[in-house]
Amino acid sequence: MRALLFDRQLKMIDDAPLPDVPGDALVRVSYAGICNTDLEIIRGYGGFTGIPGHEFVGVVAHSDNQNLVGKRVVGEINAGCGRCTDCQAGDPRHCSDRSVLGIKNRDGAFAEFLSLPPQNLIEVPDSISDLEAVFAEPLAAALHVLDQVDISSSSRVAVIGDGKLAQLILMALGQTGCSLTVVGKHQAKLDLATRSGADVIKLNADGSEHGALPGDLTRERFDVVIEASGSPTGLELALDLVRPRGVLVLKSTHHGLATIDTSLIVVNEIHVIGSRCGRLARSIALLSKGRVDVQALVSRCLPISDWAAAFSEAASPETLKIVLDMSHGAR
Amino acid sequence: MRALLFDRQLKMIDDAPLPDVPGDALVRVSYAGICNTDLEIIRGYGGFTGIPGHEFVGVVAHSDNQNLVGKRVVGEINAGCGRCTDCQAGDPRHCSDRSVLGIKNRDGAFAEFLSLPPQNLIEVPDSISDLEAVFAEPLAAALHVLDQVDISSSSRVAVIGDGKLAQLILMALGQTGCSLTVVGKHQAKLDLATRSGADVIKLNADGSEHGALPGDLTRERFDVVIEASGSPTGLELALDLVRPRGVLVLKSTHHGLATIDTSLIVVNEIHVIGSRCGRLARSIALLSKGRVDVQALVSRCLPISDWAAAFSEAASPETLKIVLDMSHGAR
Repeated sequence: MRALLFDRQLKMIDDAPLPDVPGDALVRVSYAGICNTDLEIIRGYGGFTGIPGHEFVGVVAHSDNQNLVGKRVVGEINAGCGRCTDCQAGDPRHCSDRSVLGIKNRDGAFAEFLSLPPQNLIEVPDSISDLEAVFAEPLAAALHVLDQVDISSSSRVAVIGDGKLAQLILMALGQTGCSLTVVGKHQAKLDLATRSGADVIKLNADGSEHGALPGDLTRERFDVVIEASGSPTGLELALDLVRPRGVLVLKSTHHGLATIDTSLIVVNEIHVIGSRCGRLARSIALLSKGRVDVQALVSRCLPISDWAAAFSEAASPETLKIVLDMSHGAR
Repeated sequence: MRALLFDRQLKMIDDAPLPDVPGDALVRVSYAGICNTDLEIIRGYGGFTGIPGHEFVGVVAHSDNQNLVGKRVVGEINAGCGRCTDCQAGDPRHCSDRSVLGIKNRDGAFAEFLSLPPQNLIEVPDSISDLEAVFAEPLAAALHVLDQVDISSSSRVAVIGDGKLAQLILMALGQTGCSLTVVGKHQAKLDLATRSGADVIKLNADGSEHGALPGDLTRERFDVVIEASGSPTGLELALDLVRPRGVLVLKSTHHGLATIDTSLIVVNEIHVIGSRCGRLARSIALLSKGRVDVQALVSRCLPISDWAAAFSEAASPETLKIVLDMSHGAR
């Protein structure tokens, strides 16, 4: 099959073997989204080798569970050992022996076919389009913040970053009625964020603030700050914006180390919470209600054969989501 | 009065003016402990200038509240504005206009006299000796971990560091019946930690592990890890020891920056919690029950006139608590 293979560099090959994991269902991929984690992986993050890609929608081509065959699905990306306490409780996200689609010990979605355990697959209702469904995984990751942090209509929340993950977090938090502020550098993306009801703090390219801040923002720090910029300097800014005893959610993974003044965390007694994958049932439910306009985040949809242009464009600061059409241009 | 003054360097002066803060009570200091924060302050932490010292026991010499005069007291070190929401709720620890005894905008305890607002002073029962009472502040800071993190008899807890703060944390956590492990480099200090019921992991001077770990420790990571080593490398080790979704408490303040792989926090969804001051009523209650042997932590008690030797010894890796006797050697 045709697939994008990463092994120190990314390339397209036409002779990748079909996935062959015992017990897995085989899914023909329709669309796959390029996530910042994919861009980090091809910079060396996590030491992954294989087929990347973990945001997808597709159709089940084969499964021991006949009810799944022919169904349009999205998939939970963590596949666990099935035996540990977490797996037995139905949550393989922190199984120490897990594989993760396109991220860890498991080939991913930038291919004609992928495989996942049948229990990882979630059927997509007809009310959700393919280009919406491809956001099920990152939207679940955004909604997961609400599993971890109490956010109510009286919470003052800032999101650092104006990219695709930040925008999904703004959409997710927009459901709570909290006071929302987005902090970013890109005017078009900040304009888009206002659709989620967010106030805007624009930073200059060097990270300094652009013009005067609204008076309230200089005096009142935020109860919750969510770092979703993918930049190590975002953490420093986040520590500056969060109030004493406030919560700082780290949502970005990136290759490399961050340098921080941990005394700020100690003296202000900040709670720093790492946040990774959510559950797709929740994002599918939200998408099916039509409450979030995720398609507004699609910058471009390109055939798999244009993968090089797609990755180049995905890495541009002006771009939001690039989606690969895996059927067009596939053999 | 005689006092230790820090202004780029530490020196003893004999002509410091008596503290004169309107409304404050004046306390004649009996004993004052040297904390790691004091050592960091004289390395430049926090930019403090003035008389350091915040661990003390003394006798009230003057107060508008006549009931306090002549009483033996310890003191909460944060003095707030009295008007903000936190202060109105009786908790000035995060008041943005607070001063902190010997740490921020307020002269401290390495002097014949200090002053604090009367409501900051807590009377010491007769059952507690002076050399125990001087631990009221750091023991409160240790106990504060229990305000922030649920720790039960089934929790597996590791404390990184074997110094005076780590030992107090071990004593505090020993009250919960949790499984305790101490990770340190100094055999005598580790031996002392076993009195709090802790298992021991000894590190080599370079931070590597010394000999084989008990089998359970290599396979089972900790629910809660408390970083109290005062070393930036302690944070890295802490991230390695804490289980996915576990809690990492940062207890040390130090001058300078730490470099960390924030992706570990994100991928393992660690909760990092900064922890600073506790309330002294709690530590006084514990001390009065005789349940913690804090005097075992006193390496030496030296008169104020021997301040230079005291600070030098306090900075030695083999030393635990150095206490300054403020009455002997004072004028």
